[in-house]
Amino acid sequence: MSEQSGGLPGALAGELSRRFGARFSTSDSLREQHGRGEAYHPVRMPDAVVFAQSTGDVADIVKLCAAHRVPIVPFGAGTSLEGHVAAMQGGVSIDLSRMNEIVELNPEDLDVTVQAGVTRKQLNAYLRDQGLFFPVDPGADATLGGMAATRASGTNAVRYGTMRENVLALTVVLADGRVIRTRSRARKSSAGYDLTALFVGNEGTLGIITEATLRLQGIPEHVTSAVCPYPSVEAAVDAVIETIQTGIPVARIEIMDAITVSAVNAYSKLNLEARPTLFYEFHGSEAGASEQARRAQEIAASHGAEDFRWASDPAERARLWEARHNLHYATLAMRPGAKSWGTDVCVPISKLAEMLRESRKDNEKASFPVTLVGHVGDGNFHHGYIIDPDDPKELAEAEALNKRLVERAIALGGTCTGEHGVGYGKIKFMRAEHGEGVEVMRLIKQALDPQGLLNPGKVLPEPAAS
Amino acid sequence: MSEQSGGLPGALAGELSRRFGARFSTSDSLREQHGRGEAYHPVRMPDAVVFAQSTGDVADIVKLCAAHRVPIVPFGAGTSLEGHVAAMQGGVSIDLSRMNEIVELNPEDLDVTVQAGVTRKQLNAYLRDQGLFFPVDPGADATLGGMAATRASGTNAVRYGTMRENVLALTVVLADGRVIRTRSRARKSSAGYDLTALFVGNEGTLGIITEATLRLQGIPEHVTSAVCPYPSVEAAVDAVIETIQTGIPVARIEIMDAITVSAVNAYSKLNLEARPTLFYEFHGSEAGASEQARRAQEIAASHGAEDFRWASDPAERARLWEARHNLHYATLAMRPGAKSWGTDVCVPISKLAEMLRESRKDNEKASFPVTLVGHVGDGNFHHGYIIDPDDPKELAEAEALNKRLVERAIALGGTCTGEHGVGYGKIKFMRAEHGEGVEVMRLIKQALDPQGLLNPGKVLPEPAAS
Repeated sequence: MSEQSGGLPGALAGELSRRFGARFSTSDSLREQHGRGEAYHPVRMPDAVVFAQSTGDVADIVKLCAAHRVPIVPFGAGTSLEGHVAAMQGGVSIDLSRMNEIVELNPEDLDVTVQAGVTRKQLNAYLRDQGLFFPVDPGADATLGGMAATRASGTNAVRYGTMRENVLALTVVLADGRVIRTRSRARKSSAGYDLTALFVGNEGTLGIITEATLRLQGIPEHVTSAVCPYPSVEAAVDAVIETIQTGIPVARIEIMDAITVSAVNAYSKLNLEARPTLFYEFHGSEAGASEQARRAQEIAASHGAEDFRWASDPAERARLWEARHNLHYATLAMRPGAKSWGTDVCVPISKLAEMLRESRKDNEKASFPVTLVGHVGDGNFHHGYIIDPDDPKELAEAEALNKRLVERAIALGGTCTGEHGVGYGKIKFMRAEHGEGVEVMRLIKQALDPQGLLNPGKVLPEPAAS
Repeated sequence: MSEQSGGLPGALAGELSRRFGARFSTSDSLREQHGRGEAYHPVRMPDAVVFAQSTGDVADIVKLCAAHRVPIVPFGAGTSLEGHVAAMQGGVSIDLSRMNEIVELNPEDLDVTVQAGVTRKQLNAYLRDQGLFFPVDPGADATLGGMAATRASGTNAVRYGTMRENVLALTVVLADGRVIRTRSRARKSSAGYDLTALFVGNEGTLGIITEATLRLQGIPEHVTSAVCPYPSVEAAVDAVIETIQTGIPVARIEIMDAITVSAVNAYSKLNLEARPTLFYEFHGSEAGASEQARRAQEIAASHGAEDFRWASDPAERARLWEARHNLHYATLAMRPGAKSWGTDVCVPISKLAEMLRESRKDNEKASFPVTLVGHVGDGNFHHGYIIDPDDPKELAEAEALNKRLVERAIALGGTCTGEHGVGYGKIKFMRAEHGEGVEVMRLIKQALDPQGLLNPGKVLPEPAAS
């Protein structure tokens, strides 16, 4: 063991320690913190943590690790939900949170370049005075590097798109330490393969994102919110389909079922009717946003929902959306000591009512509470299985429920993960979803990371026995 | 030569002929037609043409060619502009134009799946009765497979995006004949590498696109157009920047310079003022589109353009946009017998005024007329060099002018091609634009097409001598 330092080859530990001083650590508490996300997955500790401060730092760490064939796991805010940061084979966790500089803002071009460790809230606070904002909002205050790496989205993807649509370019450190810039700042380009899209959603398995150039939006002149209870989940979904199809550029359109609304009422001291409910947000000029809301209200009424309540008052609006954002804690409060296992399927919206109906039948048999919240404009929704994480029976039940849910989604033309990513939690569904496509992904992985050192054990299943 | 049939190995020609009958041809006229696009590039004939009618046909052709190590070049409508269909090393041209079926329309999900040979106009004619349309409009009636393969866009990308944003999923035949589906129909997904984006813009060098699932839009309730002459190109560009930055969701915003407006007047019998001019289109509800136009008009006025003319009347609007679409012929009419060499740079819009100013200085020295039309909302514009294609001096002059233009664009953070693609015409700029990124593209190419048979000589430069 004298040759090892926290599991690392001693020579590597020595080189990292010399190069990074106190920014290199093998302390148990740091390793433990860097081996866990925010979900139910058990901690898998790296052997060491290095805090990078520049793209050059990351390149140096990668080169050193590659020379010693030691795995590398990038780490941002640690808010991932599918075990992305777990060090499945040990190795070095590269913490990018200190790379938190806004590199370049181009207000005329509506773009900004940030280091990977800048968080969503930090960026939006910086942009506010310029009248600009970055629209992708996964709820958590994740780093933008992490959001790019997992192809995150959230409540207003229905209008503004996901990270796929909102990342213009990336700086990426490759498996051998080379650094590339994926493309220029031009709004569009047909110049060769789309390297940006290749690294958006790569989850640190093809390269490490160190900077991102993002598309920005002007803060809307006017924002109107609304809440509307529906007679049933199906009626709400039909209203969503019609709202989208009519071309109303709704900024957010979120569903909760009755149980979930009750949980929110209790936690956030609201008194919404405990029925399936849609939460809306409209962005535009004052006239434009109001017109959108009026048209959405007409559609709601035609689906039996007469109680469409506008909330133009900023305080009331903030209160509503804060309740929405606190949903996670509200559902945990339903069962003291519990954890939430969040599902993440996404289906074509024409299949959403069927999907939700079948899932409800299944959920009704569950031995724990199950909540529903959904970015329904995109066909993406989350059940929360409110389980006792220390009860193996409940874990197994949640596992089985989620498996049936995912299989149903894939059978209906959907995906196992709309926005959380694969990590290692969803690997088992990759073949069912992608078939032969998994082999193409594997060819790319082998081409870009021939030693298999970049975040091993993530995204791709083991090769099929042939 | 008895072993050869039109340059193909005799055994392969025999197998293709047995399998495809009259759909396999080595006739000179067909080969000649399949070796040319619509631009200045000389014809490079394939050795044979096969008309595919299904994904299975394409897979069979690819497998046969791969077994004989014979190159494969996909062909759609032949409207490409950078020599994409040229058979640089001979081989088999796979004509996909007979794969022209609409496979599945899902109006509730606003998506449609088409075979690769369906053209843009064919699709929009099919969709009209459903109140839907496919927004990407490169002008030419290209096939949707070809548009996906070149990451095409056009006049309304500023609002609706390019093929990058509007292709949900693809069916692709790989270099060994395997067939993959790149992803599900779900609106968003974080399930692994973005294979769709990998093949959008691959130009047939990584695989052959045989089907595409596309995002659709509802036909807007109301459309308003406007034309507005400006005191200068710079003033027009400043107005564009402000229009975009204010968040007006303009559907089209196109520039022409004075010379180009004159050419359009002459050809389309219009009497627009011969000044730098912006053409606008606004989509929305009647109130919404009008409000957009009013706000754009205010911005125009604040940049010294007082003569903002609305054209809500469909006939007047159609006449204007038809003139815009006939621009190519209008510019050719400026010089009988001439051809147009179309440039295609795209820069961040904050650099557009500088870019256009420097280019104009350069263009003023040209010995032939130079036109300007631009999708300025995206920072993308085209000069037309109206040259005598049989005059080597003019060709060389155009070549040098274009080279300086591209270098200027790249220096300003732009791209050598906004929407036409690389083909072989733009390969020489790939290294300047992408640096080390070219090596990543090459790794992907080697991984997916190890024999180098898919559209050889396109997109990627030869490896650097090291």
